[in-house]
Amino acid sequence: MPAPPKFTEYVDKNANRFIQRLADAVAIPSISGDASRRNDVFKMAQFLENHLKSVGVTTTLVNLGSHTMDGQELPLPPLVLGRIGDDESKKTILIYGHFDVQPAEKSDGWDTDPFTLVVDEKSGKLIGRGSTDDKGPVLGWVNVLEAHQQLGLDLPVNLRFCFEGMEESGSEGLDEFIEAEAKKGKGSWFEGVDAVCISDNYWLNTRTPCLTYGLRGLTYFKVCVSGPARDLHSGVFGRAVHEPMTDLIALMSKLVTPDGKILVPGVEEMVPGADAEERKIYTSLDYSIADVENSAGASIALSSSKEEVLMGRMRNPSLSLHGIEGAFYGVGAKTVIPAKVSGKFSIRLVPPQTPDAVNPLVVSYLESEFAKLNSKNKLELECLHGGKPWVEDFKHWNYEAAAKATEAIYKVKPDLTREGGSIPVTLTFAEQLGVNVLLLPMGRGDDGAHSTNEKLDRSNYIEGTKLLGTYLYEVGAIST
Amino acid sequence: MPAPPKFTEYVDKNANRFIQRLADAVAIPSISGDASRRNDVFKMAQFLENHLKSVGVTTTLVNLGSHTMDGQELPLPPLVLGRIGDDESKKTILIYGHFDVQPAEKSDGWDTDPFTLVVDEKSGKLIGRGSTDDKGPVLGWVNVLEAHQQLGLDLPVNLRFCFEGMEESGSEGLDEFIEAEAKKGKGSWFEGVDAVCISDNYWLNTRTPCLTYGLRGLTYFKVCVSGPARDLHSGVFGRAVHEPMTDLIALMSKLVTPDGKILVPGVEEMVPGADAEERKIYTSLDYSIADVENSAGASIALSSSKEEVLMGRMRNPSLSLHGIEGAFYGVGAKTVIPAKVSGKFSIRLVPPQTPDAVNPLVVSYLESEFAKLNSKNKLELECLHGGKPWVEDFKHWNYEAAAKATEAIYKVKPDLTREGGSIPVTLTFAEQLGVNVLLLPMGRGDDGAHSTNEKLDRSNYIEGTKLLGTYLYEVGAIST
Repeated sequence: MPAPPKFTEYVDKNANRFIQRLADAVAIPSISGDASRRNDVFKMAQFLENHLKSVGVTTTLVNLGSHTMDGQELPLPPLVLGRIGDDESKKTILIYGHFDVQPAEKSDGWDTDPFTLVVDEKSGKLIGRGSTDDKGPVLGWVNVLEAHQQLGLDLPVNLRFCFEGMEESGSEGLDEFIEAEAKKGKGSWFEGVDAVCISDNYWLNTRTPCLTYGLRGLTYFKVCVSGPARDLHSGVFGRAVHEPMTDLIALMSKLVTPDGKILVPGVEEMVPGADAEERKIYTSLDYSIADVENSAGASIALSSSKEEVLMGRMRNPSLSLHGIEGAFYGVGAKTVIPAKVSGKFSIRLVPPQTPDAVNPLVVSYLESEFAKLNSKNKLELECLHGGKPWVEDFKHWNYEAAAKATEAIYKVKPDLTREGGSIPVTLTFAEQLGVNVLLLPMGRGDDGAHSTNEKLDRSNYIEGTKLLGTYLYEVGAIST
Repeated sequence: MPAPPKFTEYVDKNANRFIQRLADAVAIPSISGDASRRNDVFKMAQFLENHLKSVGVTTTLVNLGSHTMDGQELPLPPLVLGRIGDDESKKTILIYGHFDVQPAEKSDGWDTDPFTLVVDEKSGKLIGRGSTDDKGPVLGWVNVLEAHQQLGLDLPVNLRFCFEGMEESGSEGLDEFIEAEAKKGKGSWFEGVDAVCISDNYWLNTRTPCLTYGLRGLTYFKVCVSGPARDLHSGVFGRAVHEPMTDLIALMSKLVTPDGKILVPGVEEMVPGADAEERKIYTSLDYSIADVENSAGASIALSSSKEEVLMGRMRNPSLSLHGIEGAFYGVGAKTVIPAKVSGKFSIRLVPPQTPDAVNPLVVSYLESEFAKLNSKNKLELECLHGGKPWVEDFKHWNYEAAAKATEAIYKVKPDLTREGGSIPVTLTFAEQLGVNVLLLPMGRGDDGAHSTNEKLDRSNYIEGTKLLGTYLYEVGAIST
């Protein structure tokens, strides 16, 4: 059952006002990773709660306590919970999103002020930090509810909302809340939830809507090599002492090949190869080498086979070297022997890999490679964080409803994709609530979520709002 | 001929006043590398000129023009030139030193304010930025001249002074000035100079004075690997594209072994091995593995042989990896694939190596190693700066005079050392003036010149002042 025409008409008529709503949200620099912006995250929580209330949602702010960041004790932004509808004959859908954003400074390379939403009429882009990640999708739900309120339409489902303000900074406190609530059973905030819908990822390309049923997991390592008590002058100490950088670079060079193969013994071997049937999934996706290369801005695809590139991203593990803490990182020339250097790398995990299974392999490999160096420096290994991969059943009614809604709005069948990144709360919801979780992205593959000039296309915001509303009708129409 | 006893007595009697003079100089934060402190470098030039004038030196300030730093056009600090004595029957010694300092902030880890000289009565340390590098030695000369003026003593030599304010920032303008002056021949500022004396390095240890007759050269490289047009998310692009960090780390891992051997073909081979006679030089030096390890603050010497460690520092080339520009360097975990990363490394050169001879080997090696990676990323190599090594004839009268002066003041024969670092002006003076250059250090090996809690021992400042004066008498006494 598609949404009533007057719903989609309302969205079109009010598009400019919806864009202003997004502009108001982008103007609040709710950067959870910047202690000095913590008040803005609170302000954004209030902004969102006010908007939810105004469209008929019963809200609660959940105090998650405090945490330490940059040596400061800081209050955690509240969870903004909401509920609307308690009709036992309807399905209940839990919506998750987040109202905090990544850091952004004009000087990072933005063409415009990151916290002023720029509506580029020519390209149709809405440019600003948080436009696509994740304020646009969150406000999409507010838009849907406003339309129903103004039109006097009943919602086809009951809705529960769970919006957090720490997603970009490790979702502190969220998992604990979900677990604690889930344990309550009857009377829990999540009581009666039939399925979850999350709009916090992206289309595979710039053309074809998709539903996402898998995410890679992650394990993030810090490899610290230390020697001298302080930084040394390379003139005075060069070739007199063991240099931590030499050892660290040697270790980091043994983790992954230039073509992406992970060298930690046992890690690749955990993942079964793709059979002919599985390869067909990737053949069928609307994707080309040009897509990954346009999106990266350079002809640097690891393979000329579309299937290989897609499998590399979606169903194979990857290992990336991110950088080094403690070494010289400035411009120019400094002749330092850094005393203590920490290499950062992470492995994206796919089933059946888990941090618990992979981490011991990484640790024992690095320790044995370090021993081979015969260095007098010290090695310390730390896993900074990790999360399991997630793969959902995409034949579930939750996906069926989203697929129908996509066809209704975009006139195409959605691609079924897996994402290379992680959205840890997905797994938490799946495991704690025991219900199907759907990732229903609003933005395109080139939105640049964590990058400069982040954008959400106007059409994705407006059609995406229609998509979210229509999805609810398709859920409501399903009889299970 | 030792200095007259009343000279050394004067130095002892006026020690506290000399320390106050150093305190006044340290209080001027003449950081040449910090644009916001440029006025202080000018202030320090004025301070030094005033002190030189007050002890009878004829001075000139040389305007070196301007340069660009941090995107700003800045006036260069003037050279402070001085001359005293024009007796053709006496030798003429040119003294070089510098009045600018390295950056320092209490928050870098200093125990006290870096720009307030702390006289630690217990340890005998004079702690402050510039105390040993190079304000103490420069003021040592002022102290010597004050003593002669106050005591009505004739100087045993003619003196010329050349003090600069950009030594810590590439000595901008200095080489050009020296070359231009040297070309003038008659009427040149350097006319009649018989030898040069520079006090801008350190004893090998904390016990034994030394004369230094060699310095390593340097060639500093930036290895840039770039691929994507912007930083990418490792979840989305990991194992889909060639990652610049993977390539760069692979290249950096092929430059040097953990025990210090340089892997660039042809670089080690340029340097002849040490024969039994040369090894004896190192055997004779007052040095132990404990010295290098105390000074590094950890048991990380590359060898348990004192000779090997000394040769590694003094007469063998070394290669140090300094860091990476453009990669993630912060604390915590960021899952970025950096778009453009530049590894920084340098090679310390020894005769007969020169940047001109070594650089092509480095470039062709890195290009061929990069080609082996089969990466679609781009490699760019840049030599940021370089300088030739320098070795002086230590049997010259200039060294003979300094050795006698050392024995007179410290009652020991000085060690004859080579330094692992570079003082480029040394080579400029040697080449342009064609005279012997002596490095006559005032401070100890643990002074921490570019580090936190930089210090000059009170005894090194006071006995060092006596040493500089006595050196002039020993030069005066030599008949060549």
